[in-house]
Amino acid sequence: MHIDIHFFPFPLSPHLLSDRTVVVIDILRATSVMVHAMSQGAQEIIPARTVEEAFQVAKTFPQNTTLLGGERESKKIEGFDLGNSPREYMAEKVRGKRLILTTTNGTRAFHSVSSAAEILAGSFFNIGATAQRCLEGERDLLLFPSGDEGNFSLEDTVCGGMLIDWIIRKGGKPVVLTDASHSAHILYQRFQNNIVEAFYLSHHGRDLVDRGFEEDLPYCARVDVTKIVPIFRDGVIKIH
Amino acid sequence: MHIDIHFFPFPLSPHLLSDRTVVVIDILRATSVMVHAMSQGAQEIIPARTVEEAFQVAKTFPQNTTLLGGERESKKIEGFDLGNSPREYMAEKVRGKRLILTTTNGTRAFHSVSSAAEILAGSFFNIGATAQRCLEGERDLLLFPSGDEGNFSLEDTVCGGMLIDWIIRKGGKPVVLTDASHSAHILYQRFQNNIVEAFYLSHHGRDLVDRGFEEDLPYCARVDVTKIVPIFRDGVIKIH
Repeated sequence: MHIDIHFFPFPLSPHLLSDRTVVVIDILRATSVMVHAMSQGAQEIIPARTVEEAFQVAKTFPQNTTLLGGERESKKIEGFDLGNSPREYMAEKVRGKRLILTTTNGTRAFHSVSSAAEILAGSFFNIGATAQRCLEGERDLLLFPSGDEGNFSLEDTVCGGMLIDWIIRKGGKPVVLTDASHSAHILYQRFQNNIVEAFYLSHHGRDLVDRGFEEDLPYCARVDVTKIVPIFRDGVIKIH
Repeated sequence: MHIDIHFFPFPLSPHLLSDRTVVVIDILRATSVMVHAMSQGAQEIIPARTVEEAFQVAKTFPQNTTLLGGERESKKIEGFDLGNSPREYMAEKVRGKRLILTTTNGTRAFHSVSSAAEILAGSFFNIGATAQRCLEGERDLLLFPSGDEGNFSLEDTVCGGMLIDWIIRKGGKPVVLTDASHSAHILYQRFQNNIVEAFYLSHHGRDLVDRGFEEDLPYCARVDVTKIVPIFRDGVIKIH
């Protein structure tokens, strides 16, 4: 299995994607929210690129079936039901609901890799199940950190490195790494005994602390707490 | 001092560059060649984007003052005097000469950052002197690994991380790192006791071994062997 990681969230040519499994990673906090919400019983998630698109999509469904969630500048959007902290997405709120989610980096990333063979939402929460799904898919793998407003993101890359580590250790198959995926693996090894340390070093992690979301850091650093692997297909994220 | 590193060699907006010192790094092998050639007495180096441009520039100078050097697919170009191995650029060949150099990644990188306040050629050879020059410039710093045909390059990034390490240790000034420059520093720390190991792991390093240039790997991993810092200004690299 060939594993690459794309350090920048700029658009990719479809020929790079068509035979691959892509794992979108936005630890702080979009894919953490997605995995958490589905583990708490959310029915499906529609990632919207803009706030306007989110409102428009919401109108096409019966009102009490749908919740609007997400952020701009890390804060809950006016008129939305939920922000972008996974701690808000508990069963009593989300069970059986359709979520329409729009965030600065993560939800857009799904659309920019939409031509891939399979697209998974990865996070520390579901790292083992995601690794297992990648191995079962038997395709080459592209990890796609959503980044930090177009910049390289340490915490997403460390999660990508952990996924590589699990695949190497559990898969028992030869794995070919690129310079980038080697580097992600090394970065993971640096933080493997203290994942949250990477969050506190990262620009986006420090920004969340400044904005009052410090509790999300240790929360999003919890490893392998669910077997849920959300899959993005035809514009919708769900458990297929 | 704020230090960033740009993991991909795509063009940068001039506003990102105008107040900064940029260090271009192409360990295997363009900036290693440049630093080595100037340490052996080459007078100046003109980085050309294409083979045609190199021949045209050469025509504008008296024939015996100028040498053509560089590579395509790592090999010496037909009609050129020298390839892209630093071991070819010894005093008996290059002293007092003007070099016109064209390589796949490195020479183009200089042109893509030409709006920066100061542009240096960095390598392991001149790591200490480059760090010193960056500190004396007192500008924010952008490290610019030339990459591997558009992809992230491990060996260039490790060199960038070593430069960060020297600046932190020798500068005695507060340094602000981004997620990317933190990561480069961590990658350097992983390989600090065995730099050449990074070359053997890297795609470009292994490619050079396959093409018969294995001796260049330990050669380019020699640390702090010259005080030369080539500076790119108005299309020409020299010691100012």
